[in-house]
Amino acid sequence: MRQFIVLGHNAPTTADFSLDDLPGAGRLDVLCRCVGTAVFLSHGIREDVRVHLVLADEYTLRFDSDSLRRLYPDERTIAARIRDGLDQREDAIGHQPAEVSPGMELYRLGFAATLDNVVGDGTLTQLHVEGTPLSEASPPSDPVFVLSDHEDFTDSEAALLADRADRRLRVGPKTLHADQTITVAHNWLDTAGDTDH
Amino acid sequence: MRQFIVLGHNAPTTADFSLDDLPGAGRLDVLCRCVGTAVFLSHGIREDVRVHLVLADEYTLRFDSDSLRRLYPDERTIAARIRDGLDQREDAIGHQPAEVSPGMELYRLGFAATLDNVVGDGTLTQLHVEGTPLSEASPPSDPVFVLSDHEDFTDSEAALLADRADRRLRVGPKTLHADQTITVAHNWLDTAGDTDH
Repeated sequence: MRQFIVLGHNAPTTADFSLDDLPGAGRLDVLCRCVGTAVFLSHGIREDVRVHLVLADEYTLRFDSDSLRRLYPDERTIAARIRDGLDQREDAIGHQPAEVSPGMELYRLGFAATLDNVVGDGTLTQLHVEGTPLSEASPPSDPVFVLSDHEDFTDSEAALLADRADRRLRVGPKTLHADQTITVAHNWLDTAGDTDH
Repeated sequence: MRQFIVLGHNAPTTADFSLDDLPGAGRLDVLCRCVGTAVFLSHGIREDVRVHLVLADEYTLRFDSDSLRRLYPDERTIAARIRDGLDQREDAIGHQPAEVSPGMELYRLGFAATLDNVVGDGTLTQLHVEGTPLSEASPPSDPVFVLSDHEDFTDSEAALLADRADRRLRVGPKTLHADQTITVAHNWLDTAGDTDH
């Protein structure tokens, strides 16, 4: 399984935002693109991918590609589904999620608790300017990538990651958007399988 | 310079579409994401990139990263600018574009004429399942990539490309969205520069 935890530092925590201004809703546009590129291929959906959107360190919305239904890759549709999720936030209690729709669950958990929940036997993979270039690295098994939205990781997030990360990889010399990084990571994993076998 | 020609087969050719339903406007969401990922980095804009959106083989909207102003990476903002461009379509006559706003010009030209205009001394690079894997290829100089929206190239487009292409490259084993392919191509070119020098 490939997993992506995306930190939305200023993301909404209630359903009270407009679909007509996603950048104004804590840069929800970035988070929507992250979900879209993590789960969608052209004319299909990837298998065995999970995305965890951490909303302002308060809620985490989980998308499971294998059971998702009625989701489309445009930002507005994904944002509408995030809003549906937040509409049900009263039903998310501790580790008990609200069932939003097939393949979508809302947890009342912040980043640290989500990390504990998600990593398990996976390889926590930090993307870092001083990491090993992807072209020189071997793909981790069951990678869990952690990405930040348009803002840098906070000091405490960075410290947690530095403490927990199993691997450090470098995507390239340019600082990409989180969604672009997900695309590159997927292609790297796809292609490693393509050329090695 | 890096250039991307993106064919929007069912894209609108008038400004008469709703920003609330970009997928319904000939999958304009895909084209918007192509523009966004082609020109934007996190917290910045790429240098020396041009995107040419071919709208239903009738108009071509050109985005020049070096002179773009007031564009943001979310789909809705980019779609609004495309609509502004189509609003000025009466001013685009032959090779004389309508000046939409800084860095945006609308040409009354279809794919073949745009290709003639754009390629010049660049390397026309076809992305093809039977091409050389990116990891084994050297980066072309002044690459011009041609991509299709959610539909395949038509027979005549494919024939034109097969006839004109200087290089054939393979992005990977999965069929990606056009915008995802642009992200991968950029990262490949960024990284080739990163590790070779």
